[in-house]
Amino acid sequence: MKKAMKIFAGNCNRTLAQKICTYAGVKLGKCEILKFSNDNIKVRILESVRGKDVYIVQSSSPPVNEYFMELLIMIDAIKHAKADHITAVLPYYPYVRSDKKDEPRISITARLIADLLETAGADRVMTMNLHSSQICGFFRVPVDHLLAGRFLCDYYRKQGIDNCVVVAPDAGSAKRAGHYAINLGLPLAILDKRRDGDKEKPMIQHVIGDVKGKRALIFDDEIATGGSILETVKALESLGVTEIQACCVHGVLSGKAIERLKSSSLSKLVVTDTVDIPPGKKMKNMVVISVAQLFAKAILYSHNGTSMSGLFGQM
Amino acid sequence: MKKAMKIFAGNCNRTLAQKICTYAGVKLGKCEILKFSNDNIKVRILESVRGKDVYIVQSSSPPVNEYFMELLIMIDAIKHAKADHITAVLPYYPYVRSDKKDEPRISITARLIADLLETAGADRVMTMNLHSSQICGFFRVPVDHLLAGRFLCDYYRKQGIDNCVVVAPDAGSAKRAGHYAINLGLPLAILDKRRDGDKEKPMIQHVIGDVKGKRALIFDDEIATGGSILETVKALESLGVTEIQACCVHGVLSGKAIERLKSSSLSKLVVTDTVDIPPGKKMKNMVVISVAQLFAKAILYSHNGTSMSGLFGQM
Amino acid sequence: MKKAMKIFAGNCNRTLAQKICTYAGVKLGKCEILKFSNDNIKVRILESVRGKDVYIVQSSSPPVNEYFMELLIMIDAIKHAKADHITAVLPYYPYVRSDKKDEPRISITARLIADLLETAGADRVMTMNLHSSQICGFFRVPVDHLLAGRFLCDYYRKQGIDNCVVVAPDAGSAKRAGHYAINLGLPLAILDKRRDGDKEKPMIQHVIGDVKGKRALIFDDEIATGGSILETVKALESLGVTEIQACCVHGVLSGKAIERLKSSSLSKLVVTDTVDIPPGKKMKNMVVISVAQLFAKAILYSHNGTSMSGLFGQM
Amino acid sequence: MKKAMKIFAGNCNRTLAQKICTYAGVKLGKCEILKFSNDNIKVRILESVRGKDVYIVQSSSPPVNEYFMELLIMIDAIKHAKADHITAVLPYYPYVRSDKKDEPRISITARLIADLLETAGADRVMTMNLHSSQICGFFRVPVDHLLAGRFLCDYYRKQGIDNCVVVAPDAGSAKRAGHYAINLGLPLAILDKRRDGDKEKPMIQHVIGDVKGKRALIFDDEIATGGSILETVKALESLGVTEIQACCVHGVLSGKAIERLKSSSLSKLVVTDTVDIPPGKKMKNMVVISVAQLFAKAILYSHNGTSMSGLFGQM
Amino acid sequence: MKKAMKIFAGNCNRTLAQKICTYAGVKLGKCEILKFSNDNIKVRILESVRGKDVYIVQSSSPPVNEYFMELLIMIDAIKHAKADHITAVLPYYPYVRSDKKDEPRISITARLIADLLETAGADRVMTMNLHSSQICGFFRVPVDHLLAGRFLCDYYRKQGIDNCVVVAPDAGSAKRAGHYAINLGLPLAILDKRRDGDKEKPMIQHVIGDVKGKRALIFDDEIATGGSILETVKALESLGVTEIQACCVHGVLSGKAIERLKSSSLSKLVVTDTVDIPPGKKMKNMVVISVAQLFAKAILYSHNGTSMSGLFGQM
Amino acid sequence: MKKAMKIFAGNCNRTLAQKICTYAGVKLGKCEILKFSNDNIKVRILESVRGKDVYIVQSSSPPVNEYFMELLIMIDAIKHAKADHITAVLPYYPYVRSDKKDEPRISITARLIADLLETAGADRVMTMNLHSSQICGFFRVPVDHLLAGRFLCDYYRKQGIDNCVVVAPDAGSAKRAGHYAINLGLPLAILDKRRDGDKEKPMIQHVIGDVKGKRALIFDDEIATGGSILETVKALESLGVTEIQACCVHGVLSGKAIERLKSSSLSKLVVTDTVDIPPGKKMKNMVVISVAQLFAKAILYSHNGTSMSGLFGQM
Repeated sequence: MKKAMKIFAGNCNRTLAQKICTYAGVKLGKCEILKFSNDNIKVRILESVRGKDVYIVQSSSPPVNEYFMELLIMIDAIKHAKADHITAVLPYYPYVRSDKKDEPRISITARLIADLLETAGADRVMTMNLHSSQICGFFRVPVDHLLAGRFLCDYYRKQGIDNCVVVAPDAGSAKRAGHYAINLGLPLAILDKRRDGDKEKPMIQHVIGDVKGKRALIFDDEIATGGSILETVKALESLGVTEIQACCVHGVLSGKAIERLKSSSLSKLVVTDTVDIPPGKKMKNMVVISVAQLFAKAILYSHNGTSMSGLFGQM
Repeated sequence: MKKAMKIFAGNCNRTLAQKICTYAGVKLGKCEILKFSNDNIKVRILESVRGKDVYIVQSSSPPVNEYFMELLIMIDAIKHAKADHITAVLPYYPYVRSDKKDEPRISITARLIADLLETAGADRVMTMNLHSSQICGFFRVPVDHLLAGRFLCDYYRKQGIDNCVVVAPDAGSAKRAGHYAINLGLPLAILDKRRDGDKEKPMIQHVIGDVKGKRALIFDDEIATGGSILETVKALESLGVTEIQACCVHGVLSGKAIERLKSSSLSKLVVTDTVDIPPGKKMKNMVVISVAQLFAKAILYSHNGTSMSGLFGQM
Repeated sequence: MKKAMKIFAGNCNRTLAQKICTYAGVKLGKCEILKFSNDNIKVRILESVRGKDVYIVQSSSPPVNEYFMELLIMIDAIKHAKADHITAVLPYYPYVRSDKKDEPRISITARLIADLLETAGADRVMTMNLHSSQICGFFRVPVDHLLAGRFLCDYYRKQGIDNCVVVAPDAGSAKRAGHYAINLGLPLAILDKRRDGDKEKPMIQHVIGDVKGKRALIFDDEIATGGSILETVKALESLGVTEIQACCVHGVLSGKAIERLKSSSLSKLVVTDTVDIPPGKKMKNMVVISVAQLFAKAILYSHNGTSMSGLFGQM
Repeated sequence: MKKAMKIFAGNCNRTLAQKICTYAGVKLGKCEILKFSNDNIKVRILESVRGKDVYIVQSSSPPVNEYFMELLIMIDAIKHAKADHITAVLPYYPYVRSDKKDEPRISITARLIADLLETAGADRVMTMNLHSSQICGFFRVPVDHLLAGRFLCDYYRKQGIDNCVVVAPDAGSAKRAGHYAINLGLPLAILDKRRDGDKEKPMIQHVIGDVKGKRALIFDDEIATGGSILETVKALESLGVTEIQACCVHGVLSGKAIERLKSSSLSKLVVTDTVDIPPGKKMKNMVVISVAQLFAKAILYSHNGTSMSGLFGQM
Repeated sequence: MKKAMKIFAGNCNRTLAQKICTYAGVKLGKCEILKFSNDNIKVRILESVRGKDVYIVQSSSPPVNEYFMELLIMIDAIKHAKADHITAVLPYYPYVRSDKKDEPRISITARLIADLLETAGADRVMTMNLHSSQICGFFRVPVDHLLAGRFLCDYYRKQGIDNCVVVAPDAGSAKRAGHYAINLGLPLAILDKRRDGDKEKPMIQHVIGDVKGKRALIFDDEIATGGSILETVKALESLGVTEIQACCVHGVLSGKAIERLKSSSLSKLVVTDTVDIPPGKKMKNMVVISVAQLFAKAILYSHNGTSMSGLFGQM
Repeated sequence: MKKAMKIFAGNCNRTLAQKICTYAGVKLGKCEILKFSNDNIKVRILESVRGKDVYIVQSSSPPVNEYFMELLIMIDAIKHAKADHITAVLPYYPYVRSDKKDEPRISITARLIADLLETAGADRVMTMNLHSSQICGFFRVPVDHLLAGRFLCDYYRKQGIDNCVVVAPDAGSAKRAGHYAINLGLPLAILDKRRDGDKEKPMIQHVIGDVKGKRALIFDDEIATGGSILETVKALESLGVTEIQACCVHGVLSGKAIERLKSSSLSKLVVTDTVDIPPGKKMKNMVVISVAQLFAKAILYSHNGTSMSGLFGQM
């Protein structure tokens, strides 16, 4: 007797969307996303959504602005096609790092993204591991903020964490790293990056904490160019660690990231599939953990009005 | 004693923005638009805009969505930098042809664009020759809708229009063509395009009106792929015209447009510079008429609170 | 288990509303609309609407502003009486021709009407054959835009269309006329109206296309004063047509329209009942086709969440 | 160096608007208000308002809804013509008595009016003697609520108020009458109206207070049909008063009001010109006090940012 | 099959909330309201509200601002916990007397309260006996305005009202008192309070109407400091009444109210429990009539979509 | 020729407001803030603000909710008194620590505060050292986020920082502490707090970094109960530091903070006066650095449209 549910997907990460549908036990909704020769997007929703509870899955990866506009147009089309309720599902939130104004006259673009989603017609948003949890406060519509950290820790516990230390690549990420350290019952170390002058590159002076002779686990919310990870790896090498692994939720892996990571002494890289990892970005020692089941569960709970509390942990 | 004015420009058509500034007698505002390796845009406004009357010039051309997001981010940055008033100046309005819902479950994206501009913080919009003038009604903020038609007619009058006939490529554009015909005091002819069946290509059956032995002038608001112009040219050839010229405000010229137009018997193509025409898109018989002075005038009138009525005519 | 539906009607076209209810199989909701001696309207909704899915039918005819305010007050009363969802059903949309700003400092009143409906509390709008389909974009709430053209063509096909030609009264209506011509498989002709000077009356110079010896069918979205139709009829007479029929969706028939049409050589006038045709406005050769069943169907589909796509065609 | 001011007027009470302009020392702005044969209003603002501080004077009298829509369309036209600030000046506020919901499923139309004014684009509202002062709270934009009571008392003091008593026509108006009594230093009496049963007409049982041998002054915010005044006059006659005068701010005088008042023993009727009193509504013993100077003062104070406090008193 | 209902309560009047739940047959929802040492409130909703129809009961009594912020925070928490619909139930509305602007530059705080409730996320409001019924117009969301007057009259009719007169303490409350007089079929008297000069205390000059030898019943919407009641009692004593009773809906009883009332010759005080009466504020001759059943009924009707009309009368 | 400026102050920290006015060279605006016996606040603005650029200074300290409601009521009163522009100046932002949803069904109250300020009528917000800089993104109106860190460092540099180490009390504050360390050119150490079980008190296991024999400087954005500082002090004592100083922007000092700090081995406490420090909360070794001049400068820059960039640094 409940309103029917439909899940649609943009072009950004259809593999994940397809998996979510499989776990949720529904067919991915049919829609056509065209590109005119003048570079304008045209979206045709090919199934009736009148009165339905609709979920639209669209992650973020290059071309980021293209995919985001695609999502806005999909929401608009579905809203005016008289859907009852629209949830924008953004496994990796676009512009997630533009969450504060630390220079004059810049945009808090993560906030703008929130406003644009609401304007287009999103009644609710579902996303995963925001760079800062304050971003939830950028929305006037309710947000379901899923967290994958507990599941990544589960993976590590299975793999074994003897003699490990959690390493934060800089003071700014000490808080997040601390959560992982507590969950895994491991010690924490922090790299203290400084610049000598204003214009110089960041330089790692020394480590705060004890890493020598240990296996280092670096946790972050995302790995973009890999530059920061690489610096961290080099610093840790010189500090006498026995092995280095890195783990992040969002495998953005932009620019020369893969190249850099391949050439580093990183023994393993663990990521989820919030961002699609095309074959060209795969590495031998890369482990991809799917979050499809988590999203499927969240969508079903949301549709059925079931409490999600206790489902996703603290990080 | 008035509030100072600043003009900024996005990356889409900086040549036009620069010319507008020259005519307006102001320096183009300094800003930096970066692209991170993860494809996120970062905008840094490098001059104070606190309390200023700001104009942001951004046209639309591929990458369309990229440039539009760039504009939204610029508006957001400038709004939160406490500008007094922000006018988004869009010489060619993005998604201008997506102005109605002629299929089920599609987006009236030109309306969505309007909503997004208002959400980002545009207090007013200035644009030129919208595909349909109803689009002004998509905005809750006031719009200055400039029209270049009268100035294009001036060009033609100077060139000579003896023995000419204005040709509308199809019934849908008869109204616009009629305005040009009236302004130039020329007769009008209309091509009657039909499909034999649903899935076939458009096919021009016959002309409504008299073109034989005349010089045909085709007027349109934009030329995109050139497909429609090409069909019209071919039809007119077979109908015995002595010469064919085409004129449009927005030289979108996407896909194979230039290739097609070069290989056609078109003797001249007149466009404005609302859309930047890079060297690779130039043709021998192409005339580009600049609208920079019109925009400069409109911006100064807007800033000074001078009436623009009677400035721009009917088309 | 679904929310109950109620249909109410304002005073503008209660006959149509009553017919819609009959087709929909529901009783017209009871409400009282009073006028105080000071000309203020008072609306009393006489049935509970708490938690209901409510449809309010109100067309537009003189006194136009009176009826529109009546509709706004009904929406307000029903909203604050805690209806779950309100759809304003406007068979003929008020101020539909004020859809663009073709003179300085005028109002796009069709857009203002949209804003006022949303402000009063309309969650959705249902209307028929808008003068321009862009008007749908004036709304932030979803619009169901019904189109009666296909049903009018059905009528003509039944009557016989041998030797007919579709005539557009001017270039501006060539597009709409073209749709009818295509649907009926008939040729198209266009009258080319021009003014000699600024202040003169419109004057029809000549026809574009072939009408001699044919039966002319004039299609339009509405007939208001009949002035344009009359001119067209006179022009066609002088061009040697054998018979002239006119057909429009909205029989506004204001001012001296009926008088004029009666005295013309029009052999038949086909209208729908979106606007009530009181006995005094009836003519011998007038055919009124009811749209009640179409609206009843649309309301039931809307209430039940059934797709309306494919129901109403292109014009 | 300040922004220029413009005053425009709708058709409702142009005499008052013209007087206000004279007192304010500005010319009434030129605009054209047309009515099409289909009863649609068209407003053309004939002077530039770009960047101006605009005041639009429109009162309320039959046809009330017509005049109110006219006002909304004027506001919309002026807003989109880029006025800097728009103040709607409503000497008599429409639907002012519909200020509460004392029956189920009715509209608080005075609140709807407020919302519609804001939606059309009014940045501020100026009005006079609202039926209840809570109506100011219906607006999100600031309201200048002028009060004419003190000036009416000034008139009475000049005329002489020996042996007078202020009479409230019923318990509901005792509060307002009390304010006048205090200002004039006069005693107060209240008529106690009751119905014997539900369906019967109101019946005045008796007076609360002392009126015998006195001159009765009845004060009210408005006189509509005159029914209530007439009943009061009759009751006072039977209670032995020596003379009866009535005074109100808004001379609505609808329906048979003038007829009734003429045939009554009322010795004088004092009204203001917030509502236009056409010659046919004038009576011998009617005194019309103009509020034009008050409004002119308020508009100048508003334009110049001068405090209005202390200008208008308590009633 | 309907959405489940939940009732939560703030700290202001949990006794009433608990009683409402008992009458409604539901358990009071679990939530934790903490106060940090820095005086910040923290609300933890301890039951899932996802997709539920939620009612939050919070009255108003000192600390008024504390309790109101508590309510706003509860609404916010419940909204972002994805409740389907939130009704703020305010048995006694905060700042209810700040409903007009009778001095320059003050706030119509009752309107601000309405705006703040809507901003926090209230979809509907339920309240009782507002000081002026216009306050309903302060809301854009629908309001259920319950009235307890009829039930208080029922109480008096049971107690016997022989030889009684209803007394309004001043002209301003004559209207409300009149309603009670009519419902009870009793005569009405009004005390005429005046000040001799601007700065003096109010002074009761004389009574309008007949009270000598009668039992006086004073009705009001609320009793705050008791000052006004006390003055009225004293005046009535000197006018020869045989007994004085007072009755109000909201027993605010602030400042020295209880002290004053105890020392007066008031023979009985009747109040409801919209405001909690702690033991320290109880008096021997005080009767507290619970409105819990009324609210329970209203909540159930609201949840079930049942009409409330005819349930609550006129005062 | 510019609009005049006015500064008003609520009751929370009038000393600071008074100092700001002195630095800004303007007189503090007159207003009266009353409390009725029923605990309702009444604000009377005693100077005209019509057309003015108004700044309202209100910090946050117990009673927090009282002061915040006071601010909202002041904004509302000033908005409806027709101020041109209102800036809410919040030296210490209320509920600043409620900036994320780290438990199910709680409120991001810092975001709610932003919404309420905008609803009341704040056009802009000025505040200092938000707990997380993302809070700026909670606002749709522009925010001037002042930072006092650079000025606190200036103080320390003057005092001498030989042999000092900056200590972060936990991983979560490592980022902020890192900024201070960089500005002062000092090393950084972090205390690693962990709980043994879920319900136990936080327990400091060990320090990350080198503190032995050094002078420890603890920097934080605020000190509330002092509990965290105390633990840190104790831990540092056991780690062999030679001296401990603490410095924070906001001296909230709630609960037993002063008692605790007095009994600790802290040699100095540096705070600013964003929160008023009453005599009872002063300690011998407390240094209060006034931010009045910073705010005065920011207000003048804001009023004059002068760029603030480069004024306040990074922390």
